[in-house]
Amino acid sequence: MVKFDFISPTRIIFGEGTENRVGEETLKYSKKILLHYGGGSIKKTGLYDKVTRSLDKAGIEYIELPGVKPNPRLGLVKEGIRICRENNIGFILAVGGGSVIDSAKAISVGVPYEGDVWDFYSGKTLPQESLPVGVVLTIAAAGSEASKSSVITNEDGWYKRGLNVDIIRPKFAIMNPALTYTLPPYQTASGIADIIAHIMERYFTNTPNVELTDRLCEATLKTVINNAMIVMEDPCNYNARAEIMWAGTLAHNDLLGTGRVGDWASHQIEHELSAIYDIAHGAGLAIVFPAWMEYVYKHNINRFAQFAVRVWDVEYSFDSPEKTVLEGIKRTRSFFGSIGLPTTLKGAGIPGDRLEEMAAKCKMTNGDTVGQFVRLTRDDVLNILKLAQ
Amino acid sequence: MVKFDFISPTRIIFGEGTENRVGEETLKYSKKILLHYGGGSIKKTGLYDKVTRSLDKAGIEYIELPGVKPNPRLGLVKEGIRICRENNIGFILAVGGGSVIDSAKAISVGVPYEGDVWDFYSGKTLPQESLPVGVVLTIAAAGSEASKSSVITNEDGWYKRGLNVDIIRPKFAIMNPALTYTLPPYQTASGIADIIAHIMERYFTNTPNVELTDRLCEATLKTVINNAMIVMEDPCNYNARAEIMWAGTLAHNDLLGTGRVGDWASHQIEHELSAIYDIAHGAGLAIVFPAWMEYVYKHNINRFAQFAVRVWDVEYSFDSPEKTVLEGIKRTRSFFGSIGLPTTLKGAGIPGDRLEEMAAKCKMTNGDTVGQFVRLTRDDVLNILKLAQ
Repeated sequence: MVKFDFISPTRIIFGEGTENRVGEETLKYSKKILLHYGGGSIKKTGLYDKVTRSLDKAGIEYIELPGVKPNPRLGLVKEGIRICRENNIGFILAVGGGSVIDSAKAISVGVPYEGDVWDFYSGKTLPQESLPVGVVLTIAAAGSEASKSSVITNEDGWYKRGLNVDIIRPKFAIMNPALTYTLPPYQTASGIADIIAHIMERYFTNTPNVELTDRLCEATLKTVINNAMIVMEDPCNYNARAEIMWAGTLAHNDLLGTGRVGDWASHQIEHELSAIYDIAHGAGLAIVFPAWMEYVYKHNINRFAQFAVRVWDVEYSFDSPEKTVLEGIKRTRSFFGSIGLPTTLKGAGIPGDRLEEMAAKCKMTNGDTVGQFVRLTRDDVLNILKLAQ
Repeated sequence: MVKFDFISPTRIIFGEGTENRVGEETLKYSKKILLHYGGGSIKKTGLYDKVTRSLDKAGIEYIELPGVKPNPRLGLVKEGIRICRENNIGFILAVGGGSVIDSAKAISVGVPYEGDVWDFYSGKTLPQESLPVGVVLTIAAAGSEASKSSVITNEDGWYKRGLNVDIIRPKFAIMNPALTYTLPPYQTASGIADIIAHIMERYFTNTPNVELTDRLCEATLKTVINNAMIVMEDPCNYNARAEIMWAGTLAHNDLLGTGRVGDWASHQIEHELSAIYDIAHGAGLAIVFPAWMEYVYKHNINRFAQFAVRVWDVEYSFDSPEKTVLEGIKRTRSFFGSIGLPTTLKGAGIPGDRLEEMAAKCKMTNGDTVGQFVRLTRDDVLNILKLAQ
């Protein structure tokens, strides 16, 4: 186990009807807020009415900024910053999923900063201050409701970049699993893949002696996998939705990564996919991760075997541990396929003509390599994209 | 899963040498603090010197209040409250284990309260304010470093009572596993039993559909059990100490109890044991818990069988699930014995002549019963104490 510094102060308000508490929770921070959301889905489902009624009841004035798209854009973030400044807004309420929350976080650090908010995403500098952010969550996926991450796409060049700092962790996350009943199956499945990928990025580590977090990762993965099967069949199953929703938060609030160094290459590679093709992040991960596993598993057969045995219930082959590993990778890919996700680029309708471009743009996080479990060069990234075809 | 509201905002600063950061962390809260600790052990180990050096370096003035005993007393809490008020102290630093931290928490809510601090423990009222508390942890056991609990013993009648409120969660917990190397084996073992009991109290629930938290509980239990074997043999094994220390925090910060109703009868029964006999809390739990299990297991054979199979690797008996259950209970008791703890009252040198008194004093938490998994009457409590003889 390596040294760590961990804080996850987001208040989780979990269960049916909790969205009606949003006014009272928000009032602890400000009487004038930015209400940030995506398209019209929260109006169709009636969530918008519930949220605004609760805000009205608490006497909170809200200025609306809808229009967040999947893979949220820098342009809208800048508009949000302008609105907050002009109206002296003290709090941002994100009603939606990871994209809306990530956009709200970007606005929250942009408001008190004199420079260009993209500086925080390009790695030029780190934010020192932020407006408080609260969340009403509508999809179990990104874990942004309690995470220190925000990922924004810069339309100028279609760069997709992340920021990771504790000050952007939301103050509260209101999580009612019933709000996820109406998600289209593909979005539910993409969310599930995103959750699984967040855990796997932390699971595949070179840090020795990480028994507790290994087991916590395995526990969370097994739960998500088991309940994924249920919600794909029965989208209004409250308990299965609840298991996945809470798992989605724990998958990315960093608890599962305490004391260990995660990998994160698959995320960086996927960012290039979804920056160009605007594919759902989780679906992109369902394509990239199994290819990454095939490409790197020889680096640590034991770890991949443990994953196969403990997560996928593969019987350990004493004659050929590699056989165990390959069965684990096969089950990972099959699982993604079984919930309706593409598991190859071709399956997602992505042609093979821009693989070099994606490899060339992929953010190298340590000098000229990306990933920690195995440090991948740009050639390795290209090979993984080819394997994913 | 039932509705829940969960917040665990304590910053965890984990790893070797982290105690040297205590000055800089404390400075975020106050320049004048109460330094609260137990006996002379932190002076013998050199921890006292490191902490005071770090405080000095940060320019922090500290007034010392040593003398916290196991099962911390109300008398010292009142002295702490007086010192804080007289000296206008803004922060309490607890250097020690659960007793020191619980005492610090009691002082922290007592200072701004006009009435008797025991009001919070007797259930008369709840605290609305508190001084901030920070921790340098020296034993993995109570989980008080990030929990919302504090347990205090009132010498007037030897009542041992708990307070559970979020405002007493510490601001930070500095956790260096190496600080636990010098613990006597009996204290290490008692701490391990305490951690295991915190998880088991949450595990044995009537709440259905709690797969994620079940699995997280099992993951944490398995890790503690595996590493307990290692530290009892090799007390200076950093990694095993680290696994147990981090598990001890997660066992009681409430994460494992989210969305489920815990039992807590064994804790209430044990409080009577340790209030009268001043036995280590964990050792008392090692005696009470297996007896409780034997007394209540028929209430839910499946849950006890799952515990046996997933935690203790008992092979499930399809012919007799009860056989599986009994083997799980047997292994629980054997485990406590194997790390050097008593598993019967007699084994702890506790005579059988005051069982009725303990049953009569046991705090009934729901009207005239205690516990949630099975609601125990005073007669049940007496029967469990008799089983524990």
